[in-house]
Amino acid sequence: MTLFLVGIGPGGGSDMTDRARAALAASDLIVGYTVYVDLLRSDFPDKELRSTPMRREVERTRMALAEAAAGRTVALVCSGDPGVYGMAGLCLELAPEFPPIDIEMVAGVTAATAAAAALGAPLMHDFAVVSLSDLLTPWTLIEARLDAAARADFVICLYNPSSRSRSDYLQRACDVLLRSKSSATLCGIARNIGRNGDDARMLTLGELHTASVDMFTTVIVGSSATRSIEGRMVTPRGYGLEGR
Amino acid sequence: MTLFLVGIGPGGGSDMTDRARAALAASDLIVGYTVYVDLLRSDFPDKELRSTPMRREVERTRMALAEAAAGRTVALVCSGDPGVYGMAGLCLELAPEFPPIDIEMVAGVTAATAAAAALGAPLMHDFAVVSLSDLLTPWTLIEARLDAAARADFVICLYNPSSRSRSDYLQRACDVLLRSKSSATLCGIARNIGRNGDDARMLTLGELHTASVDMFTTVIVGSSATRSIEGRMVTPRGYGLEGR
Repeated sequence: MTLFLVGIGPGGGSDMTDRARAALAASDLIVGYTVYVDLLRSDFPDKELRSTPMRREVERTRMALAEAAAGRTVALVCSGDPGVYGMAGLCLELAPEFPPIDIEMVAGVTAATAAAAALGAPLMHDFAVVSLSDLLTPWTLIEARLDAAARADFVICLYNPSSRSRSDYLQRACDVLLRSKSSATLCGIARNIGRNGDDARMLTLGELHTASVDMFTTVIVGSSATRSIEGRMVTPRGYGLEGR
Repeated sequence: MTLFLVGIGPGGGSDMTDRARAALAASDLIVGYTVYVDLLRSDFPDKELRSTPMRREVERTRMALAEAAAGRTVALVCSGDPGVYGMAGLCLELAPEFPPIDIEMVAGVTAATAAAAALGAPLMHDFAVVSLSDLLTPWTLIEARLDAAARADFVICLYNPSSRSRSDYLQRACDVLLRSKSSATLCGIARNIGRNGDDARMLTLGELHTASVDMFTTVIVGSSATRSIEGRMVTPRGYGLEGR
Protein backbone atom coordinates (compact mmCIF):
# COMPACT_ATOMS: atom_id res chain seq x y z
CA MET A 1 0.00 0.00 0.00
CA THR A 2 3.05 2.24 -0.40
CA LEU A 3 4.30 3.91 -3.53
CA PHE A 4 7.78 5.43 -3.34
CA LEU A 5 8.71 8.04 -5.95
CA VAL A 6 12.45 7.50 -6.01
CA GLY A 7 15.07 9.83 -7.48
CA ILE A 8 18.13 7.78 -8.36
CA GLY A 9 20.33 10.79 -9.12
CA PRO A 10 21.91 11.65 -12.46
CA GLY A 11 23.95 8.48 -12.92
CA GLY A 12 21.79 5.96 -11.15
CA GLY A 13 24.70 4.47 -9.25
CA SER A 14 26.92 6.30 -6.80
CA ASP A 15 24.76 9.43 -6.82
CA MET A 16 21.90 7.54 -5.19
CA THR A 17 21.08 8.37 -1.56
CA ASP A 18 20.79 5.87 1.27
CA ARG A 19 17.10 6.75 1.51
CA ALA A 20 16.57 5.91 -2.18
CA ARG A 21 18.43 2.62 -1.86
CA ALA A 22 16.37 1.70 1.23
CA ALA A 23 13.11 2.47 -0.59
CA LEU A 24 14.14 0.25 -3.51
CA ALA A 25 15.19 -2.51 -1.10
CA ALA A 26 11.80 -2.31 0.65
CA SER A 27 9.82 -2.53 -2.59
CA ASP A 28 8.24 -5.62 -4.12
CA LEU A 29 8.18 -4.06 -7.58
CA ILE A 30 10.40 -1.42 -9.25
CA VAL A 31 8.88 0.46 -12.19
CA GLY A 32 10.49 2.98 -14.52
CA TYR A 33 11.69 4.04 -17.93
CA THR A 34 13.74 1.23 -19.49
CA VAL A 35 17.13 2.96 -19.26
CA TYR A 36 16.80 3.67 -15.51
CA VAL A 37 15.44 0.24 -14.64
CA ASP A 38 18.36 -1.35 -16.50
CA LEU A 39 20.78 0.68 -14.37
CA LEU A 40 19.27 -0.92 -11.24
CA ARG A 41 19.20 -4.53 -12.42
CA SER A 42 22.65 -5.47 -11.11
CA ASP A 43 22.08 -3.79 -7.72
CA PHE A 44 18.67 -5.42 -7.16
CA PRO A 45 18.87 -8.79 -8.95
CA ASP A 46 16.04 -10.38 -6.97
CA LYS A 47 13.42 -7.67 -7.45
CA GLU A 48 10.61 -7.68 -9.94
CA LEU A 49 11.53 -4.91 -12.38
CA ARG A 50 9.08 -3.56 -14.92
CA SER A 51 10.09 -1.04 -17.54
CA THR A 52 8.13 1.01 -20.02
CA PRO A 53 9.37 3.15 -22.92
CA MET A 54 9.70 6.94 -22.78
CA ARG A 55 6.63 9.10 -23.34
CA ARG A 56 4.45 6.54 -21.60
CA GLU A 57 4.53 8.40 -18.28
CA VAL A 58 0.80 8.39 -17.65
CA GLU A 59 0.48 4.67 -18.32
CA ARG A 60 3.55 3.88 -16.20
CA THR A 61 2.30 5.98 -13.28
CA ARG A 62 -1.21 4.48 -13.37
CA MET A 63 0.31 0.99 -13.38
CA ALA A 64 2.46 1.80 -10.35
CA LEU A 65 -0.53 3.30 -8.50
CA ALA A 66 -2.70 0.27 -9.31
CA GLU A 67 -0.04 -2.17 -8.05
CA ALA A 68 0.33 -0.20 -4.81
CA ALA A 69 -3.45 -0.01 -4.39
CA ALA A 70 -3.52 -3.81 -4.77
CA GLY A 71 -1.36 -4.05 -1.65
CA ARG A 72 2.19 -4.16 -2.98
CA THR A 73 5.09 -1.90 -2.07
CA VAL A 74 6.12 -0.22 -5.31
CA ALA A 75 9.00 2.07 -6.30
CA LEU A 76 8.55 4.32 -9.32
CA VAL A 77 12.06 5.43 -10.28
CA CYS A 78 13.10 8.65 -11.99
CA SER A 79 16.48 9.92 -13.07
CA GLY A 80 17.68 12.85 -10.95
CA ASP A 81 14.88 14.00 -8.64
CA PRO A 82 11.26 12.87 -9.17
CA GLY A 83 10.09 16.36 -8.16
CA VAL A 84 11.98 18.27 -10.90
CA TYR A 85 10.36 17.57 -14.29
CA GLY A 86 9.89 14.00 -13.02
CA MET A 87 6.86 11.86 -12.16
CA ALA A 88 6.01 13.17 -8.68
CA GLY A 89 3.39 15.68 -9.80
CA LEU A 90 1.73 13.35 -12.26
CA CYS A 91 1.52 10.70 -9.55
CA LEU A 92 -0.23 13.04 -7.11
CA GLU A 93 -2.57 14.19 -9.89
CA LEU A 94 -3.56 10.61 -10.78
CA ALA A 95 -3.73 9.25 -7.20
CA PRO A 96 -7.35 10.32 -6.56
CA GLU A 97 -8.44 7.80 -9.24
CA PHE A 98 -7.24 4.97 -6.95
CA PRO A 99 -8.02 3.74 -3.42
CA PRO A 100 -5.95 5.61 -0.79
CA ILE A 101 -2.30 4.58 -0.61
CA ASP A 102 0.78 6.04 1.05
CA ILE A 103 2.84 8.04 -1.43
CA GLU A 104 6.34 8.87 -0.29
CA MET A 105 8.71 11.16 -2.21
CA VAL A 106 12.42 10.38 -2.10
CA ALA A 107 14.42 13.35 -3.41
CA GLY A 108 17.55 12.80 -5.47
CA VAL A 109 20.42 14.88 -6.84
CA THR A 110 18.89 16.77 -9.76
CA ALA A 111 20.64 17.43 -13.09
CA ALA A 112 21.12 21.14 -12.35
CA THR A 113 23.32 20.62 -9.32
CA ALA A 114 25.08 17.56 -10.79
CA ALA A 115 25.94 19.55 -13.92
CA ALA A 116 27.07 22.45 -11.74
CA ALA A 117 29.43 20.17 -9.80
CA ALA A 118 30.94 18.89 -13.05
CA LEU A 119 31.47 22.45 -14.32
CA GLY A 120 32.72 24.06 -11.08
CA ALA A 121 30.40 26.23 -9.01
CA PRO A 122 28.08 28.15 -11.35
CA LEU A 123 24.96 27.98 -9.09
CA MET A 124 26.40 29.81 -6.11
CA HIS A 125 24.02 32.69 -6.62
CA ASP A 126 20.30 32.94 -7.45
CA PHE A 127 19.31 30.76 -10.40
CA ALA A 128 16.31 29.88 -12.55
CA VAL A 129 15.52 26.43 -13.93
CA VAL A 130 13.68 26.32 -17.27
CA SER A 131 12.74 23.35 -19.44
CA LEU A 132 12.88 23.97 -23.19
CA SER A 133 10.41 21.16 -23.88
CA ASP A 134 7.18 22.57 -25.31
CA LEU A 135 5.37 19.23 -25.31
CA LEU A 136 3.42 20.38 -22.26
CA THR A 137 4.12 24.12 -22.11
CA PRO A 138 3.49 26.79 -24.75
CA TRP A 139 6.73 28.17 -26.24
CA THR A 140 5.51 31.74 -25.58
CA LEU A 141 5.60 31.05 -21.81
CA ILE A 142 9.05 29.44 -22.05
CA GLU A 143 10.28 32.48 -23.96
CA ALA A 144 8.77 34.92 -21.45
CA ARG A 145 10.47 33.10 -18.57
CA LEU A 146 13.85 33.01 -20.32
CA ASP A 147 13.59 36.72 -21.05
CA ALA A 148 12.62 37.60 -17.46
CA ALA A 149 15.36 35.44 -15.96
CA ALA A 150 17.99 36.95 -18.26
CA ARG A 151 16.95 40.54 -17.53
CA ALA A 152 17.04 39.89 -13.75
CA ASP A 153 20.57 38.45 -14.17
CA PHE A 154 19.75 35.00 -12.81
CA VAL A 155 22.07 32.13 -13.63
CA ILE A 156 19.84 30.01 -15.90
CA CYS A 157 19.81 26.24 -16.03
CA LEU A 158 18.18 24.68 -19.09
CA TYR A 159 16.65 21.20 -18.92
CA ASN A 160 15.64 19.30 -22.06
CA PRO A 161 17.62 21.65 -24.32
CA SER A 162 17.08 19.53 -27.41
CA SER A 163 15.41 16.49 -28.88
CA ARG A 164 15.08 15.01 -32.34
CA SER A 165 11.91 16.99 -33.02
CA ARG A 166 13.22 20.22 -31.41
CA SER A 167 16.74 20.49 -32.77
CA ASP A 168 16.68 24.30 -33.00
CA TYR A 169 15.21 25.05 -29.54
CA LEU A 170 18.50 25.83 -27.86
CA GLN A 171 19.27 28.28 -30.66
CA ARG A 172 15.86 29.91 -30.20
CA ALA A 173 16.45 30.13 -26.44
CA CYS A 174 19.82 31.78 -27.04
CA ASP A 175 18.15 34.30 -29.35
CA VAL A 176 15.91 35.31 -26.42
CA LEU A 177 18.80 35.45 -23.92
CA LEU A 178 20.94 37.53 -26.30
CA ARG A 179 18.30 40.29 -26.25
CA SER A 180 19.62 41.34 -22.84
CA LYS A 181 22.81 39.33 -22.22
CA SER A 182 26.27 39.74 -23.71
CA SER A 183 27.39 37.12 -26.23
CA ALA A 184 30.53 36.82 -24.06
CA THR A 185 28.46 35.49 -21.11
CA LEU A 186 30.12 32.34 -19.78
CA CYS A 187 28.06 29.16 -20.24
CA GLY A 188 28.57 25.48 -19.52
CA ILE A 189 27.41 22.24 -21.09
CA ALA A 190 27.36 19.00 -19.09
CA ARG A 191 26.52 15.69 -20.74
CA ASN A 192 25.95 12.19 -19.35
CA ILE A 193 26.88 13.32 -15.85
CA GLY A 194 27.38 10.42 -13.45
CA ARG A 195 27.54 7.94 -16.34
CA ASN A 196 30.28 6.59 -18.55
CA GLY A 197 31.41 9.13 -21.12
CA ASP A 198 30.52 12.13 -18.99
CA ASP A 199 31.71 15.44 -20.33
CA ALA A 200 31.57 19.06 -19.17
CA ARG A 201 32.89 22.11 -20.98
CA MET A 202 32.63 25.89 -20.95
CA LEU A 203 31.81 28.15 -23.87
CA THR A 204 30.39 31.61 -24.47
CA LEU A 205 26.71 32.36 -25.03
CA GLY A 206 27.65 33.29 -28.61
CA GLU A 207 29.18 29.85 -29.07
CA LEU A 208 26.27 28.13 -27.32
CA HIS A 209 23.99 29.66 -29.94
CA THR A 210 25.49 27.36 -32.58
CA ALA A 211 26.41 24.43 -30.31
CA SER A 212 24.96 20.98 -30.85
CA VAL A 213 23.47 19.32 -27.77
CA ASP A 214 21.33 16.26 -27.15
CA MET A 215 18.69 15.18 -24.64
CA PHE A 216 21.32 13.94 -22.16
CA THR A 217 22.75 17.44 -21.85
CA THR A 218 22.15 20.10 -19.20
CA VAL A 219 23.07 23.68 -20.07
CA ILE A 220 23.97 26.41 -17.57
CA VAL A 221 24.03 30.03 -18.71
CA GLY A 222 26.01 32.29 -16.38
CA SER A 223 24.96 35.59 -14.85
CA SER A 224 26.95 38.75 -15.52
CA ALA A 225 29.19 37.80 -12.57
CA THR A 226 30.01 34.25 -13.74
CA ARG A 227 33.63 33.77 -14.74
CA SER A 228 36.27 31.13 -15.35
CA ILE A 229 38.75 30.46 -12.54
CA GLU A 230 41.54 28.04 -13.46
CA GLY A 231 39.32 26.27 -15.97
CA ARG A 232 36.17 26.05 -13.82
CA MET A 233 32.89 27.94 -14.15
CA VAL A 234 32.25 30.02 -11.02
CA THR A 235 29.53 32.48 -10.04
CA PRO A 236 31.02 34.25 -7.01
CA ARG A 237 28.57 34.55 -4.19
CA GLY A 238 29.76 38.03 -3.39
CA TYR A 239 32.09 37.30 -0.52
CA GLY A 240 34.28 40.37 -0.05
CA LEU A 241 37.40 38.29 0.38
CA GLU A 242 39.75 41.16 1.13
CA GLY A 243 37.58 42.54 3.89
CA ARG A 244 36.93 39.39 5.91
CA MET B 1 46.47 16.56 -2.46
CA THR B 2 42.72 16.19 -2.90
CA LEU B 3 39.98 18.39 -1.50
CA PHE B 4 36.45 17.04 -1.77
CA LEU B 5 33.58 19.51 -1.46
CA VAL B 6 30.93 17.18 -0.10
CA GLY B 7 27.20 17.80 0.03
CA ILE B 8 25.71 15.68 2.79
CA GLY B 9 22.10 16.41 1.86
CA PRO B 10 19.53 18.16 4.03
CA GLY B 11 19.59 15.81 6.98
CA GLY B 12 23.16 14.60 6.88
CA GLY B 13 22.19 10.98 7.31
CA SER B 14 20.04 8.97 4.94
CA ASP B 15 19.96 11.73 2.31
CA MET B 16 23.70 11.33 1.70
CA THR B 17 24.78 9.76 -1.60
CA ASP B 18 27.14 6.82 -1.97
CA ARG B 19 29.61 9.18 -3.67
CA ALA B 20 29.57 11.53 -0.68
CA ARG B 21 30.04 8.69 1.77
CA ALA B 22 32.95 7.32 -0.30
CA ALA B 23 34.62 10.76 -0.37
CA LEU B 24 34.32 11.05 3.43
CA ALA B 25 35.68 7.52 3.87
CA ALA B 26 38.67 8.35 1.62
CA SER B 27 39.52 11.52 3.55
CA ASP B 28 42.12 11.95 6.30
CA LEU B 29 40.40 15.05 7.63
CA ILE B 30 36.76 16.19 7.59
CA VAL B 31 36.14 19.93 8.02
CA GLY B 32 32.86 21.80 8.39
CA TYR B 33 30.46 23.92 10.36
CA THR B 34 30.02 22.45 13.85
CA VAL B 35 26.44 21.21 13.40
CA TYR B 36 27.25 19.24 10.23
CA VAL B 37 30.48 17.77 11.55
CA ASP B 38 28.62 16.61 14.66
CA LEU B 39 26.11 14.80 12.43
CA LEU B 40 28.99 12.78 10.93
CA ARG B 41 30.77 11.86 14.15
CA SER B 42 28.93 8.59 14.74
CA ASP B 43 29.29 7.46 11.11
CA PHE B 44 33.02 8.20 10.93
CA PRO B 45 34.32 7.65 14.48
CA ASP B 46 37.95 7.15 13.43
CA LYS B 47 38.35 10.27 11.30
CA GLU B 48 39.92 13.51 12.33
CA LEU B 49 37.03 15.97 12.42
CA ARG B 50 37.56 19.71 12.66
CA SER B 51 34.68 22.12 13.07
CA THR B 52 34.44 25.88 12.93
CA PRO B 53 31.51 28.15 13.84
CA MET B 54 29.13 29.70 11.30
CA ARG B 55 30.18 32.83 9.46
CA ARG B 56 33.79 31.67 9.40
CA GLU B 57 33.51 30.30 5.87
CA VAL B 58 36.63 31.98 4.48
CA GLU B 59 38.79 30.80 7.36
CA ARG B 60 37.37 27.27 7.18
CA THR B 61 37.91 27.04 3.42
CA ARG B 62 41.50 28.35 3.59
CA MET B 63 42.27 25.82 6.32
CA ALA B 64 40.89 22.97 4.21
CA LEU B 65 42.86 24.14 1.15
CA ALA B 66 46.06 24.44 3.20
CA GLU B 67 45.68 20.93 4.63
CA ALA B 68 45.10 19.50 1.14
CA ALA B 69 48.08 21.44 -0.24
CA ALA B 70 50.16 19.89 2.55
CA GLY B 71 49.41 16.47 1.07
CA ARG B 72 46.34 15.30 2.98
CA THR B 73 43.02 14.15 1.57
CA VAL B 74 40.44 16.54 2.96
CA ALA B 75 36.64 16.71 2.85
CA LEU B 76 34.95 20.06 3.34
CA VAL B 77 31.33 19.26 4.16
CA CYS B 78 28.26 21.37 3.46
CA SER B 79 24.60 20.80 4.23
CA GLY B 80 22.55 20.12 1.10
CA ASP B 81 24.68 20.72 -1.99
CA PRO B 82 28.03 22.57 -1.79
CA GLY B 83 27.24 24.25 -5.13
CA VAL B 84 23.98 25.94 -4.02
CA TYR B 85 24.79 28.78 -1.59
CA GLY B 86 27.49 26.46 -0.20
CA MET B 87 31.29 26.57 -0.14
CA ALA B 88 32.11 25.35 -3.68
CA GLY B 89 32.46 28.78 -5.25
CA LEU B 90 34.46 30.25 -2.37
CA CYS B 91 36.81 27.26 -2.54
CA LEU B 92 37.49 27.76 -6.27
CA GLU B 93 37.97 31.50 -5.68
CA LEU B 94 40.54 30.91 -2.92
CA ALA B 95 42.34 27.95 -4.55
CA PRO B 96 44.74 30.10 -6.64
CA GLU B 97 46.35 31.27 -3.35
CA PHE B 98 47.58 27.71 -2.76
CA PRO B 99 49.79 25.19 -4.60
CA PRO B 100 47.79 23.17 -7.16
CA ILE B 101 45.54 20.48 -5.67
CA ASP B 102 42.72 18.35 -7.03
CA ILE B 103 39.34 19.80 -6.10
CA GLU B 104 36.41 17.46 -6.56
CA MET B 105 32.78 18.52 -6.17
CA VAL B 106 30.32 15.98 -4.77
CA ALA B 107 26.75 17.15 -5.34
CA GLY B 108 24.07 16.52 -2.74
CA VAL B 109 20.30 16.82 -2.44
CA THR B 110 19.69 20.55 -2.04
CA ALA B 111 17.09 22.09 0.27
CA ALA B 112 14.81 23.14 -2.60
CA THR B 113 14.14 19.61 -3.80
CA ALA B 114 14.12 18.12 -0.29
CA ALA B 115 11.52 20.69 0.79
CA ALA B 116 9.55 20.00 -2.40
CA ALA B 117 9.48 16.27 -1.62
CA ALA B 118 8.18 16.98 1.89
CA LEU B 119 5.43 19.24 0.54
CA GLY B 120 4.38 17.17 -2.48
CA ALA B 121 5.50 18.14 -5.98
CA PRO B 122 5.64 21.94 -6.22
CA LEU B 123 8.76 22.11 -8.47
CA MET B 124 7.35 20.18 -11.42
CA HIS B 125 7.48 23.27 -13.59
CA ASP B 126 10.05 26.05 -14.11
CA PHE B 127 11.30 27.53 -10.86
CA ALA B 128 13.61 30.21 -9.52
CA VAL B 129 15.82 29.92 -6.45
CA VAL B 130 16.48 33.14 -4.51
CA SER B 131 18.33 33.68 -1.25
CA LEU B 132 16.94 36.41 1.00
CA SER B 133 20.28 36.91 2.74
CA ASP B 134 21.66 40.37 1.97
CA LEU B 135 24.95 39.76 3.76
CA LEU B 136 26.62 39.38 0.36
CA THR B 137 24.00 40.70 -2.06
CA PRO B 138 22.33 44.12 -2.17
CA TRP B 139 18.62 43.96 -1.26
CA THR B 140 17.73 45.93 -4.40
CA LEU B 141 19.01 43.03 -6.54
CA ILE B 142 17.15 40.46 -4.43
CA GLU B 143 13.98 42.51 -4.81
CA ALA B 144 14.44 42.85 -8.58
CA ARG B 145 14.85 39.10 -8.96
CA LEU B 146 11.80 38.31 -6.81
CA ASP B 147 9.73 40.76 -8.85
CA ALA B 148 10.93 39.34 -12.19
CA ALA B 149 10.36 35.73 -11.10
CA ALA B 150 6.86 36.51 -9.84
CA ARG B 151 5.84 38.35 -13.02
CA ALA B 152 7.09 35.46 -15.19
CA ASP B 153 5.03 33.06 -13.04
CA PHE B 154 7.96 30.93 -11.89
CA VAL B 155 7.54 28.78 -8.81
CA ILE B 156 9.91 30.53 -6.37
CA CYS B 157 12.03 28.79 -3.77
CA LEU B 158 13.41 31.02 -0.99
CA TYR B 159 16.62 30.08 0.81
CA ASN B 160 17.69 31.83 4.04
CA PRO B 161 14.23 33.36 4.53
CA SER B 162 15.05 34.72 7.97
CA SER B 163 17.72 35.18 10.60
CA ARG B 164 17.93 36.97 13.94
CA SER B 165 19.13 40.16 12.28
CA ARG B 166 16.69 39.90 9.34
CA SER B 167 13.43 38.96 11.00
CA ASP B 168 11.27 40.99 8.59
CA TYR B 169 12.88 39.87 5.30
CA LEU B 170 10.28 37.27 4.45
CA GLN B 171 7.58 39.89 4.96
CA ARG B 172 9.46 42.29 2.68
CA ALA B 173 9.83 39.55 0.06
CA CYS B 174 6.08 38.85 0.25
CA ASP B 175 5.42 42.56 -0.28
CA VAL B 176 7.34 42.34 -3.56
CA LEU B 177 5.63 39.12 -4.67
CA LEU B 178 2.17 40.50 -3.86
CA ARG B 179 2.70 43.30 -6.41
CA SER B 180 1.93 40.79 -9.16
CA LYS B 181 0.72 37.60 -7.43
CA SER B 182 -2.61 36.86 -5.79
CA SER B 183 -2.66 36.63 -1.98
CA ALA B 184 -4.40 33.26 -2.50
CA THR B 185 -1.27 31.81 -4.20
CA LEU B 186 -0.46 28.46 -2.60
CA CYS B 187 2.83 28.39 -0.69
CA GLY B 188 4.70 25.83 1.40
CA ILE B 189 7.03 25.97 4.38
CA ALA B 190 9.41 23.10 5.14
CA ARG B 191 11.51 23.08 8.30
CA ASN B 192 14.29 20.76 9.52
CA ILE B 193 13.81 18.45 6.56
CA GLY B 194 15.65 15.15 6.95
CA ARG B 195 16.21 15.79 10.67
CA ASN B 196 14.24 15.08 13.81
CA GLY B 197 11.28 17.38 14.20
CA ASP B 198 10.81 17.93 10.48
CA ASP B 199 7.68 19.75 9.50
CA ALA B 200 6.04 20.79 6.22
CA ARG B 201 2.83 22.74 5.78
CA MET B 202 0.91 24.70 3.16
CA LEU B 203 -0.47 28.22 3.49
CA THR B 204 -1.44 31.09 1.21
CA LEU B 205 0.87 33.90 0.17
CA GLY B 206 -1.28 36.22 2.29
CA GLU B 207 -0.68 33.99 5.31
CA LEU B 208 3.02 33.64 4.49
CA HIS B 209 3.28 37.42 4.72
CA THR B 210 2.74 37.22 8.49
CA ALA B 211 4.24 33.77 9.10
CA SER B 212 7.18 33.28 11.42
CA VAL B 213 10.08 31.26 9.98
CA ASP B 214 13.65 30.56 11.06
CA MET B 215 16.96 29.86 9.34
CA PHE B 216 16.23 26.11 9.13
CA THR B 217 13.20 26.79 6.94
CA THR B 218 12.85 26.63 3.16
CA VAL B 219 9.89 28.43 1.58
CA ILE B 220 8.28 27.56 -1.74
CA VAL B 221 5.89 30.05 -3.35
CA GLY B 222 3.67 28.48 -5.99
CA SER B 223 3.02 29.65 -9.54
CA SER B 224 -0.51 30.52 -10.67
CA ALA B 225 -0.97 26.81 -11.52
CA THR B 226 0.08 25.41 -8.13
CA ARG B 227 -2.75 23.80 -6.19
CA SER B 228 -3.49 21.44 -3.32
CA ILE B 229 -4.34 17.84 -4.22
CA GLU B 230 -5.39 15.70 -1.24
CA GLY B 231 -3.29 17.77 1.13
CA ARG B 232 -0.16 18.01 -1.03
CA MET B 233 1.27 21.00 -2.88
CA VAL B 234 1.39 20.26 -6.63
CA THR B 235 2.39 22.35 -9.64
CA PRO B 236 0.99 20.35 -12.57
CA ARG B 237 3.46 19.99 -15.37
CA GLY B 238 0.77 20.48 -17.94
CA TYR B 239 0.04 16.88 -18.89
CA GLY B 240 -3.27 16.84 -20.70
CA LEU B 241 -4.47 13.80 -18.80
CA GLU B 242 -7.74 13.40 -20.62
CA GLY B 243 -6.12 13.43 -24.05
CA ARG B 244 -3.35 10.88 -23.54
